[in-house]
Amino acid sequence: MTDAASKTMIASVMNEIGHNARRAFAALALAPSHAKNAALQAAARQLRLRRSRILDANRIDMDAARAKALSGAMLDRLLLDGSRIEAMAEGLEAIVALPDPIGKVLADWQRPNGLSIQRVAVPLGVIGIIYESRPNVTADASGLCIKSGNAVILRGGSESFHSSQAIYACMREGLQEAGLPLDAVQMVPMRDREAVGFLLSSMAGMIDVVVPRGGKSLIRRVQEDARVPVIGHLEGVCHVYVHGEADLDMATSIVLNAKMRRTGICGAAETILVDKDIAGAALPLIIDALTRAGCEIRGDDAVVAADPAVVPASEDDWSREYLDAIVSMRVVDDLPAALAHIGKFGSGHTDCIVTNNDAAALEFLGRVDSAIVLHNASTQFADGGEFGMGAEIGIATGRIHARGPVGAEQLTSYKYVVRGAGQTRP
Amino acid sequence: MTDAASKTMIASVMNEIGHNARRAFAALALAPSHAKNAALQAAARQLRLRRSRILDANRIDMDAARAKALSGAMLDRLLLDGSRIEAMAEGLEAIVALPDPIGKVLADWQRPNGLSIQRVAVPLGVIGIIYESRPNVTADASGLCIKSGNAVILRGGSESFHSSQAIYACMREGLQEAGLPLDAVQMVPMRDREAVGFLLSSMAGMIDVVVPRGGKSLIRRVQEDARVPVIGHLEGVCHVYVHGEADLDMATSIVLNAKMRRTGICGAAETILVDKDIAGAALPLIIDALTRAGCEIRGDDAVVAADPAVVPASEDDWSREYLDAIVSMRVVDDLPAALAHIGKFGSGHTDCIVTNNDAAALEFLGRVDSAIVLHNASTQFADGGEFGMGAEIGIATGRIHARGPVGAEQLTSYKYVVRGAGQTRP
Repeated sequence: MTDAASKTMIASVMNEIGHNARRAFAALALAPSHAKNAALQAAARQLRLRRSRILDANRIDMDAARAKALSGAMLDRLLLDGSRIEAMAEGLEAIVALPDPIGKVLADWQRPNGLSIQRVAVPLGVIGIIYESRPNVTADASGLCIKSGNAVILRGGSESFHSSQAIYACMREGLQEAGLPLDAVQMVPMRDREAVGFLLSSMAGMIDVVVPRGGKSLIRRVQEDARVPVIGHLEGVCHVYVHGEADLDMATSIVLNAKMRRTGICGAAETILVDKDIAGAALPLIIDALTRAGCEIRGDDAVVAADPAVVPASEDDWSREYLDAIVSMRVVDDLPAALAHIGKFGSGHTDCIVTNNDAAALEFLGRVDSAIVLHNASTQFADGGEFGMGAEIGIATGRIHARGPVGAEQLTSYKYVVRGAGQTRP
Repeated sequence: MTDAASKTMIASVMNEIGHNARRAFAALALAPSHAKNAALQAAARQLRLRRSRILDANRIDMDAARAKALSGAMLDRLLLDGSRIEAMAEGLEAIVALPDPIGKVLADWQRPNGLSIQRVAVPLGVIGIIYESRPNVTADASGLCIKSGNAVILRGGSESFHSSQAIYACMREGLQEAGLPLDAVQMVPMRDREAVGFLLSSMAGMIDVVVPRGGKSLIRRVQEDARVPVIGHLEGVCHVYVHGEADLDMATSIVLNAKMRRTGICGAAETILVDKDIAGAALPLIIDALTRAGCEIRGDDAVVAADPAVVPASEDDWSREYLDAIVSMRVVDDLPAALAHIGKFGSGHTDCIVTNNDAAALEFLGRVDSAIVLHNASTQFADGGEFGMGAEIGIATGRIHARGPVGAEQLTSYKYVVRGAGQTRP
């Protein structure tokens, strides 16, 4: 095909998807909870029933990915097995168990002129989800969208094309069994990058919001090209600040967990700040625990001096999201110095203070301007499931609409319902 | 100056404004309610004290506007007098009386592992307000931003430059008297359009959200050029649907008020839909009331047949926001036909049903997907003040972040505060 013909084809396919989505949204927005839950339950059942078909599809993707010599981390994200398929099905069942966020009366008041005003939760509309080659996002994201009454247009990474298609078929089957419009969940059928460009730049009247889920380069591209609102997170440069009045055992176990439980998630700690007053006692414990766990430590002069295993940090290290078994570590004078460091280098994602001093904790929790601030708990709790939201579509670091874990409740808007008895405005 | 030199100058001025705003935000975000209220009260006092200076500044703008032969409507928006200045001061005092939206615990729960989670309201950050030549927006918008802990960068219409500067000086004086950072309110000092372009496209790291306040062309430009999130409304193609079981007197008075109380506001009705069953009785009453009030009526065949004063509507009329003493009117078969009309031609702003049938009302309120839906009350109630929000910065028709009237509470985000006792994630 010529470029022009290909562009015309993409525009025509995408416009049709957009129109279908809007039509499906009109029906799904008013669907009762039991129908939406039935669709999710049926989809979970289909995932289990079609296990071998999904694994076959995944094998095609894995073979192609290996031929392209993708990295081990990427292959691991792409890989499906029986337990990962079961986890997807259980994820959908967890969403069933959540309360329906739609129709909830968020506020309710009466005006002196007798008007009754309610703010009522409604779906966002049509949501575009752009993600990388993690096939499970196909189930998680469309499950959250169905629950919250939103139509969704999925565009997964091209390496996971066959796996995602197989999972997508289960979601559509679920909608079918529940008598809901199939086009509430649609997947972009082309692998072309131009389809993403069209979605971001030319579907402003059809798509209400785009949620990018993936690495920095994907999210930056989406934020640059989008002519529709975006709910996205950029990066998690998360800090653990060990205050002068911290319990050292607690500090060590929180630092170790925050950094090393899983290093590749956005809530993993990337920088440890230790108060000067306790550095002498704290540094050996913390450095020892981290190095035993296989973590490389990049420190300032004081940290380098504390242990020969520590390598010197460069200025860049303070703003690096390693997503790996590497951590930067710095000794700070006091709480204000820690706040200044986090204000300068943090990414507004998740930050923690370890201390037994409640006043210091209160100061930290109030002054650190991040989506999630913790006192005496690991940054790895930055997760919709751990927050009790059942599931999440990502952690938002923007300040608009949703901040922190984005679950079904965050995929809603509201409308005002006003009831009168003939009032006119003076 | 050469174009390049002018661009460099704009970039440097705007970047400095942006940095100042972020620094001011860090302090204002944590300012206690009494300090923010003191700033608003002092600003109100200054508006009254500097009345003659503001009127002098306004005279300069008015003379220039008359020389440019601006329309009567534009001159009226630009004009200040004693009562309009008093209204601005009272507007600030009304904002003082509102509860402080910041620090409010929006939700609060405990996890099985003992973690305590709070969702706490925080300011949005730095807000850019781009508006046309209505000088009062300078006071209203910066007042709402101060109350909600946000730093604001104002960019008013160039015709109101001197008036806005004089009002702006009162806001800064208020901040000064309250000991708050002056740069919490800043105004772009250049009249160049390029400054707006820079603000929209090159300040993504410094500005958290832009609120355009003005006509269609301003808002479209902002939405097209913006690389930062936008809270805006496009237009208000508002409907009054007179259902078959409406009280005819009530319907007539609501239609008359919704269309004619003020024709230039976004909540003014633009289309009247009348059920076939009562058209014979309702049309003469409604048409008579509107024509007596000086309103032109553009109708479909049935409405044209009802009265010789009615002119035929073209297809375009159903989606026109007249903002004038003109209305389109159509006879519909029933409630589903009215819903279909509103779904096709409405703009999602404000729509009303007049009926004594509660089931029909419930159906309408649920199915019309607009920011504000009313039963038996005028669409002109679509206003933050009328909703009891004290003041508003506009009515949002987008579905992201805020929908409907945008007051102080809508200019907030939230953060999660998590308290533990050393929990690590398994």
